[in-house]
Amino acid sequence: MPNEQENGLLYFPKATLDRLKLYQMVLAELPDKENISSDEIAERLKITPEQVRKDISYIKYNGKPKVGYHIKTLLEELNRLFGTTNKNNVILAGVGHLGAAIANYPGFSAYGMEIVALFDSDPQKQGTFVRDLTVLPIKDLRRIIKRFKVEIGIICVPKESAQSLAEQMVACGIRAIWNFAPIILRVPDDIVVEDENISISLLGLKHKLEQRRQERQIVKNTPS
Amino acid sequence: MPNEQENGLLYFPKATLDRLKLYQMVLAELPDKENISSDEIAERLKITPEQVRKDISYIKYNGKPKVGYHIKTLLEELNRLFGTTNKNNVILAGVGHLGAAIANYPGFSAYGMEIVALFDSDPQKQGTFVRDLTVLPIKDLRRIIKRFKVEIGIICVPKESAQSLAEQMVACGIRAIWNFAPIILRVPDDIVVEDENISISLLGLKHKLEQRRQERQIVKNTPS
Repeated sequence: MPNEQENGLLYFPKATLDRLKLYQMVLAELPDKENISSDEIAERLKITPEQVRKDISYIKYNGKPKVGYHIKTLLEELNRLFGTTNKNNVILAGVGHLGAAIANYPGFSAYGMEIVALFDSDPQKQGTFVRDLTVLPIKDLRRIIKRFKVEIGIICVPKESAQSLAEQMVACGIRAIWNFAPIILRVPDDIVVEDENISISLLGLKHKLEQRRQERQIVKNTPS
Repeated sequence: MPNEQENGLLYFPKATLDRLKLYQMVLAELPDKENISSDEIAERLKITPEQVRKDISYIKYNGKPKVGYHIKTLLEELNRLFGTTNKNNVILAGVGHLGAAIANYPGFSAYGMEIVALFDSDPQKQGTFVRDLTVLPIKDLRRIIKRFKVEIGIICVPKESAQSLAEQMVACGIRAIWNFAPIILRVPDDIVVEDENISISLLGLKHKLEQRRQERQIVKNTPS
């Protein structure tokens, strides 16, 4: 069960929270279906229906026997949990290949995020356009953050400049950083950081491959 | 403790494995230091030293009192766990902004990954270069996978074409897919999939922001 803290907020185990994110994705992708069973969700994610039911009961919503979950209601509960209905203005710094890919990502608005400005330290890039946004110099950070009440900053610069950029963002009033640089940022405790770290994901891939390799080895060496 | 299965392989809880990946990153970034204490690792990751020691004891390596962990040895153990010393040839399909960003990512070789070919279905892109690699048409998949004994395929195409591409890759002999498309792929059970899903990461960010917002609300409403 999630821990109910003294302040009444719910905190979930990381693995549960990670699965709840997957359920949100699965549901958001369904066409005009009304209900879904735990079996169907489980089958898509290759986990057990018991696990699905247990996770979803954490958010205090239960499906109906033989009917399953009402998709719209469940999505509303998940949206409340993840705060996706709150709108945030967002800035992005570092308009290389990755930054451009993220600036062009079509899925942001569904999560209540709107990129309002792009930044790059390269004078060659300043003044160019990505989508309908002009690339601005870093010195404009403070002005834009104040003007658009920006809470979230996306960091897509090389890892050598990521720490100093994070500090500038925080000094200018940013409350949360979405970090794509493969480095662990040092920021004050009250700043939220979410890492999207390709290296970490790569380790996950290699680990799974290594497990399969060892399993095959065992099968091969087992006398039949 | 990790579960020791009948086959003698160790399986870790997801949260432990995720932290072990972070330790690997922290250690790999240290200059020419010889030893590191659990306190130092903990401080960088904002977790407790007890947690660090517990996690690392899982891989059957223990530090020395007052000295800490020998960085080189600990890295070797982690590299063995993650299989990063095994070399893999890799292909990447979908050379848009994101695909180009990944193809240009400098950190792959340290993890034993080498991108040997790029693919795109757009005839305009075929024949162009990214780094020293020509972009090839999808019909060359089978030939390249066989020739270079490719085990890993990276998917950077839009989500509409990701499932069909995954099926083609699997049919041509790919054993593991690193998926950057925001979709849950359906593949046979023996195929490894690691998702690098920006939408999932975005939900994590929004959730943390929402928690902070609720916490501030509670502080505000508490009579002092």
